[in-house]
Amino acid sequence: MRAIAEKAGRNLNDLRKQKPLVHNITNFVVMNVTANSLLATGASPVMAHAPNEVEEMVSFAGALVLNIGTLTDAWVDAMETAARKASGNSIPIILDPVGSGATSLRTRSARRLIDASALSVIRGNASEILSLRDRNSKTKGVDSIHSVEEAEDAAKILASELETTLAITGPVDLVTDGKRMLRIANGDAMMAYVTGTGCMATATIGAFLAVDEDPVTATATALAYFGLAGEMAAATSKAPGSFMVALLDALYLLTPKDLEQGCKIE
Amino acid sequence: MRAIAEKAGRNLNDLRKQKPLVHNITNFVVMNVTANSLLATGASPVMAHAPNEVEEMVSFAGALVLNIGTLTDAWVDAMETAARKASGNSIPIILDPVGSGATSLRTRSARRLIDASALSVIRGNASEILSLRDRNSKTKGVDSIHSVEEAEDAAKILASELETTLAITGPVDLVTDGKRMLRIANGDAMMAYVTGTGCMATATIGAFLAVDEDPVTATATALAYFGLAGEMAAATSKAPGSFMVALLDALYLLTPKDLEQGCKIE
Amino acid sequence: MRAIAEKAGRNLNDLRKQKPLVHNITNFVVMNVTANSLLATGASPVMAHAPNEVEEMVSFAGALVLNIGTLTDAWVDAMETAARKASGNSIPIILDPVGSGATSLRTRSARRLIDASALSVIRGNASEILSLRDRNSKTKGVDSIHSVEEAEDAAKILASELETTLAITGPVDLVTDGKRMLRIANGDAMMAYVTGTGCMATATIGAFLAVDEDPVTATATALAYFGLAGEMAAATSKAPGSFMVALLDALYLLTPKDLEQGCKIE
Repeated sequence: MRAIAEKAGRNLNDLRKQKPLVHNITNFVVMNVTANSLLATGASPVMAHAPNEVEEMVSFAGALVLNIGTLTDAWVDAMETAARKASGNSIPIILDPVGSGATSLRTRSARRLIDASALSVIRGNASEILSLRDRNSKTKGVDSIHSVEEAEDAAKILASELETTLAITGPVDLVTDGKRMLRIANGDAMMAYVTGTGCMATATIGAFLAVDEDPVTATATALAYFGLAGEMAAATSKAPGSFMVALLDALYLLTPKDLEQGCKIE
Repeated sequence: MRAIAEKAGRNLNDLRKQKPLVHNITNFVVMNVTANSLLATGASPVMAHAPNEVEEMVSFAGALVLNIGTLTDAWVDAMETAARKASGNSIPIILDPVGSGATSLRTRSARRLIDASALSVIRGNASEILSLRDRNSKTKGVDSIHSVEEAEDAAKILASELETTLAITGPVDLVTDGKRMLRIANGDAMMAYVTGTGCMATATIGAFLAVDEDPVTATATALAYFGLAGEMAAATSKAPGSFMVALLDALYLLTPKDLEQGCKIE
Repeated sequence: MRAIAEKAGRNLNDLRKQKPLVHNITNFVVMNVTANSLLATGASPVMAHAPNEVEEMVSFAGALVLNIGTLTDAWVDAMETAARKASGNSIPIILDPVGSGATSLRTRSARRLIDASALSVIRGNASEILSLRDRNSKTKGVDSIHSVEEAEDAAKILASELETTLAITGPVDLVTDGKRMLRIANGDAMMAYVTGTGCMATATIGAFLAVDEDPVTATATALAYFGLAGEMAAATSKAPGSFMVALLDALYLLTPKDLEQGCKIE
């Protein structure tokens, strides 16, 4: 997979040159670290959720990141408004359906955003992603999946049904648009002890979508970059406070060449 | 106090095995560090405040943490809804009455949550806790208290009147349900230079309430654990930025055995 | 400029003795780091935005900090209520017009707050500040300014028109009330890679306004202090995660004497 490794390096390089504006409507817990991770990566983050501002703001953006943690109906309304505008302007959108499947408000809100706009990517863990199936889906529920093969099949079918690219993150991340399937093996177990690493991964994909028109390669290379930064952080830090600091440092210090050599995508 | 030291270690051990879900409705300033401190401790934090989600969310939780910093009436409404549901389901609730006594909105909101539900614990500083007295209270106001003995008497009377466990934190923390009184001497002065350490202590108590049915021992052991982590952090750090990082690291690294040996509860 | 260097040291010393309460109505992204930077500096931060609380809260404060990042109309309403009360009570107010000029909501909201109250200081970058011109302004737009001299002239004219002190921050910060003009050369380029450093600078000015009645010297000495802390941080840290930690440490460790010797104000 020499080609995808080269693309990873090229995407990171392009991103740092172009410094795309990434418009985030995200949750209160992660706003600060999301902005900091995007800055460290080389993008220009903006957070804006006012119903009478999101359309104007998203018009300037290279990508729109929607995240339904700490959601309320009013915030989802603003997300929908921004998403419709972004869809109309062909600005790529990524959705992080935080907690979808856990409460009915979250599942309903995630589906509402899927219906309202043309999402480029949806990133979540397996149970969040599988909660997005509708009644007619040909995939099985999360409890019926017992092997990597079954998970990959379900992801492909669901990506086709939802007409988007899915990123299912875990020990190995899966990225599929229903036809292609990429697996990314970068990352570190300490990431689970820092709040918002999933949300930051989503925002990172947003930044890569702004410089790479192919959602599958943009997503896979972004996840490899974010995971590799986690590996670098884990090399110097063994507890979550210092790990988070080292992760932000690594996002900044990691070069396109480092990424080309260290990414584990296949 | 050999028994309570052993219970401290056992509680921390149980918490890391069970990873209880702790539902927080808390303020914007501390949401990120609260989530991170709960993760470092070993619990599973969730933040959710939507009026049409909090009842469903709290039903899955091992404890509910309410914190009125950056409050508005709408947020207090959501807290009350969640608190009524938690009370009905016998899920322990802890309230942090941030700023009660400083403004009338905060005092009124704290009392409203006390009236609406069966709180297991209220944690605050002396002036916050004493502001919760009603007109008929037999305790004296905060300005009339001039000795540790007077403070302890007031805490006992007020705990009985409010029918809850009170945790009054300061250089030495007091925990009382009106009958028993425990004093916890762990902690470090640098904690006052980091925003949200009080709020994190409250959330930590929430996590311990999920594994220990006795609110007095749950609270005292949680405060000893959190304070001991502060002592560990202060051993390596002399300024607030690096102290906060070291505190999160210490919450993660501290073992049940460390806690059993280092806790200062009597 | 020996006199202003001495005043810088005196202001920091006074601030740490008096520990003024600084009331912030600010954006979600920076609430935590703003509170932490104020604590590290030696002030007492409070965040409160409820419409039925802000007047009571601001009455206790030494300064009011308004920041329109992540704004909505409801938040700007609360800011206006607080600002009117502070103006009536002669409590100094500083406005950070985050993103003014970028969207119409932000420009309109910034102007609304300028019209509603007697602002002591407005701090922003050049394009934010120049967006505050009204139709009749004698200054040129940001695109027509091509030299430091033109920028200084525009700042002076605009400060006179708005009847306030302006702080335009960049590689060299400018502070003017229309008559006097001070230039501050402290700071480090890494600050641009950490979200909220501008917002923290604004809050720092708020704290200095609480101890120095002259808005021009309060602002210039606060910016020198904050910039010098950035220089100290950059001496030990080469990436944004560890830089932010070192910045908070430096704000705490920097002494009045360090500031007197290290400030670059002329």
